Amino acid sequence: MSRNSRTLATAEVIAVGSELLGSTRLDTNSLFVADRLASLGIQLRGKSVVGDDRRRLADVFMAALSRADLVVLSGGLGPTDDDLTREAVAEVLGLDMREDPAIVAQIQERFARRGFRMPDVNRRQAMVPRGATVLDNPNGTAPGLLIEHDHRIVVLLPGPPRELQPMFEGVCERVLTARAGGYRVYKATLSVAGRGESHVEEIAQPIYSKWTAEDPPIETTILAVPGQVELHLSLRSEAGAAAEERLRRAHEALRAALGNDVFSTDGRSMEQVVGALLRERGLTIAAAESCTGGLLLSRLTDVPGSSDYVAGGAVVYSNQLKTTLAGVSADLIATYGAVSEPVAAALADGIRARTGASIGVGITGIAGPGGGTPQKPVGTVAIAFSGGELGSRVRTVSLFGGRPQVKFQATQTALDMVRRALK
Amino acid sequence: MSRNSRTLATAEVIAVGSELLGSTRLDTNSLFVADRLASLGIQLRGKSVVGDDRRRLADVFMAALSRADLVVLSGGLGPTDDDLTREAVAEVLGLDMREDPAIVAQIQERFARRGFRMPDVNRRQAMVPRGATVLDNPNGTAPGLLIEHDHRIVVLLPGPPRELQPMFEGVCERVLTARAGGYRVYKATLSVAGRGESHVEEIAQPIYSKWTAEDPPIETTILAVPGQVELHLSLRSEAGAAAEERLRRAHEALRAALGNDVFSTDGRSMEQVVGALLRERGLTIAAAESCTGGLLLSRLTDVPGSSDYVAGGAVVYSNQLKTTLAGVSADLIATYGAVSEPVAAALADGIRARTGASIGVGITGIAGPGGGTPQKPVGTVAIAFSGGELGSRVRTVSLFGGRPQVKFQATQTALDMVRRALK
Repeated sequence: MSRNSRTLATAEVIAVGSELLGSTRLDTNSLFVADRLASLGIQLRGKSVVGDDRRRLADVFMAALSRADLVVLSGGLGPTDDDLTREAVAEVLGLDMREDPAIVAQIQERFARRGFRMPDVNRRQAMVPRGATVLDNPNGTAPGLLIEHDHRIVVLLPGPPRELQPMFEGVCERVLTARAGGYRVYKATLSVAGRGESHVEEIAQPIYSKWTAEDPPIETTILAVPGQVELHLSLRSEAGAAAEERLRRAHEALRAALGNDVFSTDGRSMEQVVGALLRERGLTIAAAESCTGGLLLSRLTDVPGSSDYVAGGAVVYSNQLKTTLAGVSADLIATYGAVSEPVAAALADGIRARTGASIGVGITGIAGPGGGTPQKPVGTVAIAFSGGELGSRVRTVSLFGGRPQVKFQATQTALDMVRRALK
Repeated sequence: MSRNSRTLATAEVIAVGSELLGSTRLDTNSLFVADRLASLGIQLRGKSVVGDDRRRLADVFMAALSRADLVVLSGGLGPTDDDLTREAVAEVLGLDMREDPAIVAQIQERFARRGFRMPDVNRRQAMVPRGATVLDNPNGTAPGLLIEHDHRIVVLLPGPPRELQPMFEGVCERVLTARAGGYRVYKATLSVAGRGESHVEEIAQPIYSKWTAEDPPIETTILAVPGQVELHLSLRSEAGAAAEERLRRAHEALRAALGNDVFSTDGRSMEQVVGALLRERGLTIAAAESCTGGLLLSRLTDVPGSSDYVAGGAVVYSNQLKTTLAGVSADLIATYGAVSEPVAAALADGIRARTGASIGVGITGIAGPGGGTPQKPVGTVAIAFSGGELGSRVRTVSLFGGRPQVKFQATQTALDMVRRALK
């Protein structure tokens, strides 16, 4: 790196491959690259996807290079005629290509280890533009390339994520960090349950508006994902400890304002948070699920080690099974209806008794699209918590969306009831 | 439409919004647009993502317009200062903007229905470039715009998918179909279970290689998704009935070669296929799940109307619950171990007896990451089917991947056992 080279402030990414222009596959590599760049304080300003078309790729690459200090290309480094990234980049930068004997030897050796001869076509992968640095690829045959050009940096990476990710990590560490002007991006997250996006914004906006006006600003994004609202804070700054302290105070102020609705400050999911609370307190959980059909227990058991605190439970779609498996009396169902608070409470009590778990959860509702009535429309779900000394609770919620959304939000509400009871 | 306007053959899409340049969100609208364009035989040649930056958007839009017959932009039509798509497009095309009183009235009425006055800022959404066609938005305040310019077409759509999708459908029907040169893309799909991607390719490749050489070619894509392999065939052609017949014959030949491993020829999921078979035969199903923790029953109950054939079942994580809820004897577990074919079979028989369902499924295994032994490594899962007159089956599979992958593939294998038993 020359010492008077320009600081890298902006970047663009280009994903190459006709398969990324269909209706099934997205360029997910750009999320990884965006995350790594953000941590270095380099702003991603644009993304493009181009098919296996040399002229078009050259055109898009030239435009990106005119706008950004760093251009990261992924894909199109394979051995076939379709793989045109090396050629298009060399053409735009006006660089000759030459075969690198060291790369040929490496690829030959890779094939030899598996008892094959290297096909001649793979020699393409050893073509290197003059002045480029070769980036080793321990996970595939295509080496990456790094080119410094007119104070800008161009990085060519292979498309498969397990090849691209370690290679780009290496580029960040060895080259980009030193050139990114010493900036870093500090981040913090709060995950909130039990409030809608606009309600969270109403509480949070007066608090964070003052930091967004400061210099450097703390940027805040509100993201509504099913069953929860996430607040992401980020601060791009040169100053290490002082920046961290500012972000910590901002995070703390939001947390205080949102109180017990904040269920996670480290990106953990609701099932991870509830699992950790159960483990900490040495408790076990069981559930009797009607409309959620097993999703609550499936989410709880997605967490490694959950067999320590998940006893199990029952999926009781039919009224008969509500009686057989969870001990709910047929009279109670006849009196209040299957979707009712008394039945939810009886499911929670019954499954707790049957399994001997510390906590029982009961869920009964109408997931839709059929089955709704004017009194109990689609999305009506009764949820009960039965916890012995921890007390009992039951509530009815009205959920929106299609069948999978109703199921998910019902389990999220149930898990949040457990979380609040254990706090 | 002028009669001598050029045929639309190529397109580019541009997604506008700074939130699409971070590390969490991708432009998924482009998949929908790509699918609709493909069905009209219009080739998507490139995609771009641009932040809320007018100069850069104008630059990217101008480049796209120079390369493609159709440019579809999504996002940036909201009421705030960040929303710059209208202005950037009008600037590049050299069109004046004027306020459309009909749009103002519509937005005012939308607010009035909810008892609010329209904020003044929403007037931005009524600004229309000279000569543009306004596209109604029944699902939001931002109308779309369609502009014909120099034999090219530019479409501006709102970003939220539930607003964008119906609006773009309308544009396809009313404008693009007539301009797309009479080409259509015919598609067919086969979903395969029980074979890996390379095995499917080995069987299918000799069959489809002859069509890919014909003119016009039938293009084939193999896609491995968790628990299944999908074969997508597509044919871009002018000729209606003849093309359909060619594709039908190709589809039939592949289906014959892959036999009963083909579980779906219309994109339906495994749980939909199994649900339809159960309904058709008037049967009900129950399951006792250990390592899958309720996921099998949750998948079955994701299908609307599944309460007709899903009885329910039990999640039996602990050995004690295998006995209490599914009637598996403690001796059997002690003799063979919880993860064994005899225990899987007893779970299937037991839950069938307890619930009175026609079919019982039992699943017991090691989802990981802990709990594996040299004899029974992580990913070992025993799966049993108990069907009375339909017979009984039990098998042990070795599954790869993390905990969620093992859980999913175990449920897929179980569903496929049910499917094969019902065929």
